[in-house]
Amino acid sequence: MSAPLTSLSWGGDHLLMLDQRLLPEEIVHLKLFTPEEVWEGIHSMKVRGAPAIGIAAAYGVVLAGLQYKGSLPAEWFENVRKACAYLATSRPTAVNLFWALDRMKLVAGQLAETLMSIENLNEKLLAEANDIRAEDEEVCRQIGVHALPLIQEGMGILTHCNAGGLATARYGTALAPMYLAQEQGISFKVFADETRPVLQGARLTAFELQQAGIDVTLLADNMAAMVMSKGWIQAVIVGTDRVAANGDVANKIGTYGVAVLAKAHGIPFYVASPLSTIDLNTPTGADIPIEERPAEEITESFGKRTAPPGVQVFNPAFDVTPNEYVTAIITEKGVVRAPYEESLKTLFEKQNK
Amino acid sequence: MSAPLTSLSWGGDHLLMLDQRLLPEEIVHLKLFTPEEVWEGIHSMKVRGAPAIGIAAAYGVVLAGLQYKGSLPAEWFENVRKACAYLATSRPTAVNLFWALDRMKLVAGQLAETLMSIENLNEKLLAEANDIRAEDEEVCRQIGVHALPLIQEGMGILTHCNAGGLATARYGTALAPMYLAQEQGISFKVFADETRPVLQGARLTAFELQQAGIDVTLLADNMAAMVMSKGWIQAVIVGTDRVAANGDVANKIGTYGVAVLAKAHGIPFYVASPLSTIDLNTPTGADIPIEERPAEEITESFGKRTAPPGVQVFNPAFDVTPNEYVTAIITEKGVVRAPYEESLKTLFEKQNK
Repeated sequence: MSAPLTSLSWGGDHLLMLDQRLLPEEIVHLKLFTPEEVWEGIHSMKVRGAPAIGIAAAYGVVLAGLQYKGSLPAEWFENVRKACAYLATSRPTAVNLFWALDRMKLVAGQLAETLMSIENLNEKLLAEANDIRAEDEEVCRQIGVHALPLIQEGMGILTHCNAGGLATARYGTALAPMYLAQEQGISFKVFADETRPVLQGARLTAFELQQAGIDVTLLADNMAAMVMSKGWIQAVIVGTDRVAANGDVANKIGTYGVAVLAKAHGIPFYVASPLSTIDLNTPTGADIPIEERPAEEITESFGKRTAPPGVQVFNPAFDVTPNEYVTAIITEKGVVRAPYEESLKTLFEKQNK
Repeated sequence: MSAPLTSLSWGGDHLLMLDQRLLPEEIVHLKLFTPEEVWEGIHSMKVRGAPAIGIAAAYGVVLAGLQYKGSLPAEWFENVRKACAYLATSRPTAVNLFWALDRMKLVAGQLAETLMSIENLNEKLLAEANDIRAEDEEVCRQIGVHALPLIQEGMGILTHCNAGGLATARYGTALAPMYLAQEQGISFKVFADETRPVLQGARLTAFELQQAGIDVTLLADNMAAMVMSKGWIQAVIVGTDRVAANGDVANKIGTYGVAVLAKAHGIPFYVASPLSTIDLNTPTGADIPIEERPAEEITESFGKRTAPPGVQVFNPAFDVTPNEYVTAIITEKGVVRAPYEESLKTLFEKQNK
C-alpha cells in the first residue's frame, strides 16, 4: 500500500492543500500563499471535513502573519486578528473552524505582547498551527482506540460522507477504528454511501479505504435502507461537523436519514467526534446554522446538466440528527452515551482538570 | 404550457420511442423497426416506468408480426411467440412487461386460428397494442380520480423516481393525482427526489412537473429525511413496478428508505398502481426478482468517473417495501388498504365480474 494522501501540509512559506474536488481522478496539491486563497479553498470545498477545515484555517492565519512586512507586533496582531475574522466566514457549520481560529487568535494576542521579533512571532504562530495539526492526528488515533472494541470480526459497517484521513490530519474520525481494526487483522466490510451531491463517499471514502486495502463497497445513498434490511450492516459510524451540548449532531446532509433507518433496523449509530467538534455553547441542534449551497451542485454536478433549467432546488449541506438516534459519541477521551447533556459536560470537566 | 411529451407512439410501420436517457437536455424520438431495437430500448432504459415498458413491449410484438414475410398464420404466430419470449428477457422486475406480452401472445394465438390474411393479422395485433396504450391512459386518469381526495390545498408531497406521464401513456400513476389537482386549481408543492443513479427524478419528474407549471423542488435523495423533519411533507406518493399478493411493493431503489422515513415522521405513504402492476401470482416481495445493474451507473453515471477504478459496487435497480409501510394502494378501481392479501384479492374478484 502506498502512504496515505495528506490533505494539508506546510511548504515553508505556503500551505499545500490537496484539491479534494479532483479526487480520485487527479492528485493535485495546491500551493496557497494568502489567507484569501485558503478562504477560497475552504469555501469551495477543496478541503473539507471539520478537523481539516480547522487545520487549514490555522495555516491561513500563519499566512496572514507572514504577509505583514512591518516591525510592530501590535500591527502584526491586527493583521492576524482580521484574518481570523475573515477566515471564519468561509463556512458556517463546522465548529472546528471557529475553534481553531479562536485558538490561533488567542496565541497570537499573547505572542504580540512579548518583545519578540516579527520573524519569531511568525515562527511561534506556525508552531501553534503545526501543533493543531499534530494534535489532530493523535486525537484521531485515540478516537480509533476507543472505538476499536465496537468492531468485531465479520461485521458490516456503513458510513456516510468522508470522515477519514482526508477529512483530518490522518486516520480520520469515523474511519480511524477501521484503520486500527485492519492493523489488528480484524476482517470486516465497509459500505460507503456515495453522498450526494458532492460525492465525498464515492470520491474520498471509497478511495482511501481501497488504497488501504480495506474491503469497501460503494452504494448510492438511497440503497442504505435495502442493505440494512438485508442484514449486512451491524453498525453505522459517521463523523460530525458540530455536536451540540445536548448531543444533537450536525453532519453531512443525509446523516439524519441514515440514523432513522439504523434505528428502524435495530442497528447502533455511532458518531466519532474530537472534543474540538463538541460545542457546549450550542445548546441544541436547532441552534446550529445549516449552510445551504448552490443549486448547481445538484443540477450540474457531473459536468453535465441533469435537471431542467430553472428548476427550484433545496441543497442543505448538513442536517441535524437528534440525540435520541445517537447510540454513542466516540471521542479521544472515551465513549459517551445518553443523557448527553450530562455525559458531554462531565467529559469536558475531566478534560479541563 | 406545451403539450406533454409522449414517451411512445406508433409511426405507421415503426415505434417512436422518446429517448428518456437524453432528457431534459435533448428531445429525441427514436424510430424502432425491430423487436431487437425495442428490447435494447427497454434494457438500456431509453424507455422506463412499468406501464410504458409494457406498452413498448406490445409494440415490439407488433413489429415481430410485421417482420414476417410469408403467408402462413401458424408461422406468423411462431414469429410473434418467439418475440414475446425474447422481449420478456429485457428487464426482470416490472410485471407489466410480462402482463402485456402475455396479452399480446394470447390475442395473436387466437387471431392466428382465424382465416385472416397476414396483413389483417398485423392490423388486429396493432389494434391490441393501441388498446393497451389507450387503456393505460384511462387507467392512469382513473388512478388520479381515486387519489385526488388525498391532495389538499397547501400540501407538500414527496415522490421518488418518475411515475409520471413519461412512465406511462399519459398522466402517470403517482403523478396523475397531481395533474388532476392542478386542473382543479388546488395549490400544492411537490418535492422530487433526484433518484440516483439514473436521476429519473431530476431528469424526468422535475422536468414534466415544471413543464406542466406545477410547483416542484428538486432534492438529492438523502435530503428527504430532513425535508420530512421540517414538516414540509404531508404525503408520499410513488409508483411501483410490481405489487405482490400480500401488498409488498417493488419500486425504484430508494423507495423502501422513503417509506421507513415516512413512517418515522407520521406521514402517509401511498402507492399508485394499475391492476396490471399487481401480481397475485407473486405471493410476497421476497418472490420478486430484483434486477442488479452495472457498476458504471454509479461510478461513471454522467460520462465522468466519480469513484476509484475497480471499487466494488452494489447497484440494485429496485427495492421492496413491506406492506406494513404502505398506507394505501391506489388503483384505477379504487383505493385499497391493509390487510392487502384480502383487499387486493377482492379488488380482482370485482374486476373479473
